Amino acid sequence: MAVTVVGSIAFDAVRTPFGERERMLGGSAVHFSLAASFFSDVRVVGPVGEDFGEPELAVLEARGVDTEDIERVAGGQTFFWRGHYDYDLNVAHTDETALNVFGEFQPKLSEPSRQADVVFLANIQPDLQREVREQCTGARLVALDSMNLWIQTARDSLVRTIAGVDCVLMNDAELRMLTERANLLQAARRVMEWGPRIVVAKQGEYGAALFSGDHFFALPAYPLETVLDPTGAGDSFAGGFLGYLAAHDLSEELEDDLLRRAMAYGTALASFNVEEFGTERVQRLTPDEVTERVAELQRFTTFVDAPVALRG
Amino acid sequence: MAVTVVGSIAFDAVRTPFGERERMLGGSAVHFSLAASFFSDVRVVGPVGEDFGEPELAVLEARGVDTEDIERVAGGQTFFWRGHYDYDLNVAHTDETALNVFGEFQPKLSEPSRQADVVFLANIQPDLQREVREQCTGARLVALDSMNLWIQTARDSLVRTIAGVDCVLMNDAELRMLTERANLLQAARRVMEWGPRIVVAKQGEYGAALFSGDHFFALPAYPLETVLDPTGAGDSFAGGFLGYLAAHDLSEELEDDLLRRAMAYGTALASFNVEEFGTERVQRLTPDEVTERVAELQRFTTFVDAPVALRG
Repeated sequence: MAVTVVGSIAFDAVRTPFGERERMLGGSAVHFSLAASFFSDVRVVGPVGEDFGEPELAVLEARGVDTEDIERVAGGQTFFWRGHYDYDLNVAHTDETALNVFGEFQPKLSEPSRQADVVFLANIQPDLQREVREQCTGARLVALDSMNLWIQTARDSLVRTIAGVDCVLMNDAELRMLTERANLLQAARRVMEWGPRIVVAKQGEYGAALFSGDHFFALPAYPLETVLDPTGAGDSFAGGFLGYLAAHDLSEELEDDLLRRAMAYGTALASFNVEEFGTERVQRLTPDEVTERVAELQRFTTFVDAPVALRG
Repeated sequence: MAVTVVGSIAFDAVRTPFGERERMLGGSAVHFSLAASFFSDVRVVGPVGEDFGEPELAVLEARGVDTEDIERVAGGQTFFWRGHYDYDLNVAHTDETALNVFGEFQPKLSEPSRQADVVFLANIQPDLQREVREQCTGARLVALDSMNLWIQTARDSLVRTIAGVDCVLMNDAELRMLTERANLLQAARRVMEWGPRIVVAKQGEYGAALFSGDHFFALPAYPLETVLDPTGAGDSFAGGFLGYLAAHDLSEELEDDLLRRAMAYGTALASFNVEEFGTERVQRLTPDEVTERVAELQRFTTFVDAPVALRG
């Protein structure tokens, strides 16, 4: 089974209290692809400029990601983001955004990309997300991410786009903003009323919560003593989550147990993402490391109740 | 086994987006006592004024809490706190604090209170906490809570007090502030270097994390669609957590499994606390409701891994 992702392919300049990089491979579609590649075939769709070269393509191809639908725009420059984090690594401060080739991006999916079982609409303008969604007629599971910018500037379009997908993966603060519900459970229910049957609230260092129908599941983040750069963690989470699902039978209604396991793999991939800058850690990640981290997560979250005489 | 708590006994005035109460029973020792009373004998130590009457005592006594060490100060007024919450219920805004009888409080524990197996030093001035700790020569487990005020105004005393206890239960933001470590795992390790062998980071609606030696465990909060008033949730958590431990054999080193279960009972009690104003919900809570909520928490947090062929 295959997963197609449409989103940004970027050069990032990032400074954190622990170091900085002036120009490194980034973008939501890149972080997602590398994470999902541990589980299933991945096809990445997005524009790049002439400055995007063989070394960057090689990072994706080394993980078996299909780059046929990466569109190289003649005379263009690749999307660029510059940001920094202070000691509260949960908050990204944007210093500069240059859309470049992304400003004129019109997604055109090849036939194999349209036929993927799972599609991830990473955080891009919601009209574009909807255009992609309409091209993917064969998809069994379509998920999207979004952000405060689109909630503030294109909310109606975003709600319409959400109505056409199966799964929404967003930061919990943005789910609250989108639905105007301070309570996360109410926010998730509101999104499900619009159409999706699965809502994942990403909570940064606190982990993630899963809502599907009346089911609820929550998982803390993997505890790390050293976090160098959180950029892309949410996309790596989505890549682990949806990549895992794409590797399994989606012909029947998604089982609760399968979704829970997918949450664990998403959590594991996100944790590796933040250990180093950009894609550095995930580039040399091994399957055994992923497996071991999921096993640790299980140990970190399991409790076994025992009878206790409570006093009335 | 018995638990002694030393802390505030108060009248609270609270306004949230969902209602308000002009004067209701509150205080850290009260919330703690009611929660702990589901598991073990509880003795509450703290001062009240002449305005503290039979109806308030009756709330504690209805749950079997021993109130012999509540000191009634002639001519005094009970500690008063007025606060409000906006839609972000994680942030309490203090509008008025009247220490009243609490300003001159010198804790004097009766012999039975000194001999309790478990002692909770609720959030009061750290010098007072240390005086209490020194009186409790028979305690097998002493825990404390604190807050930003004491970190800012009495940090040296607080660190000295922490060095003499077994367990620290604090909000995660305050653990970071106290230790000057942005990373929670580093913050917990720093506290353990000072002496305690257990650190619990309370994370509000995100749950709580447990650190003990090299062990780690985390549990999300119980998901609630309606939260009316978060006041006292942290103390109810502590009451459930330490009350549960006090009901078990502490003669050997605390087992990881036992601590994890205690986290689940703390989480359950905190969730009931916030469903209504002040102590209203916990006053009519039943043992079966507690048991059922812990079982639900287990369902909400369990995942079972299954073999998956990861791609190298």
